[in-house]
Amino acid sequence: MSGAVANQLEEGAAFTPRFSADGLMTCVAVDAASGEVLMLAHMNAEALEKTLATGVMHYWSRSRQRLWRKGDTSGQVQNVVELRVDCDQDALLARVSVGGDGGACHTGRRSCFYRRIESAAGGARLTVIDAP
Amino acid sequence: MSGAVANQLEEGAAFTPRFSADGLMTCVAVDAASGEVLMLAHMNAEALEKTLATGVMHYWSRSRQRLWRKGDTSGQVQNVVELRVDCDQDALLARVSVGGDGGACHTGRRSCFYRRIESAAGGARLTVIDAP
Repeated sequence: MSGAVANQLEEGAAFTPRFSADGLMTCVAVDAASGEVLMLAHMNAEALEKTLATGVMHYWSRSRQRLWRKGDTSGQVQNVVELRVDCDQDALLARVSVGGDGGACHTGRRSCFYRRIESAAGGARLTVIDAP
Repeated sequence: MSGAVANQLEEGAAFTPRFSADGLMTCVAVDAASGEVLMLAHMNAEALEKTLATGVMHYWSRSRQRLWRKGDTSGQVQNVVELRVDCDQDALLARVSVGGDGGACHTGRRSCFYRRIESAAGGARLTVIDAP
């Protein structure tokens, strides 16, 4: 992209979200109180629009191919405390307060990132650092 | 996916990264000391392999279509403190210590997420919360 376009994207006040070719942006959700990274998910334009309009996180489920209001079945509704965009406007950071049991992961953990990758003979292995 | 496959992905010790159709996984990098979310970027299999082998974050630049060792030009090398994978093994969380000036963003901020999205008449607007 040109310098002028880059400067507008990076320093301008206009929100011009850049979706990928598949129509999605990646969003990382963190617990607004603790700062813990809870999950990473995707939004299409409709999910982003509904999130901005309602203050509740909506995502696009790639596996189910449908709009998904987080917490509809689990109660783990994510209320937006602050939504940020990155320098080139192709990724989102959501600081959220979580309803229900306060978790985000369907396995029962607070965060989806409950396993550490460790090098081992024959390849990398996973170590669980948060029990279900 | 079947329940058995999901259980293996979610609770097994085998690291079986699931790349998207475009061969990429999303990775969120956070400052290991402060917990601040620094940036979000992508890895292909080679970037992930080099990251695991060297302990230094490598990414795949979608805009430049090439492997990218973060910090090669900026000095903002990201040393891996801990690498985690999420429940369905399609996203990564890297806790890193940053070399150089300690930042991650090419605009001069520590984090790429320096702007808040705010609703406004006529659409959402951006407010800078961290000066360059």
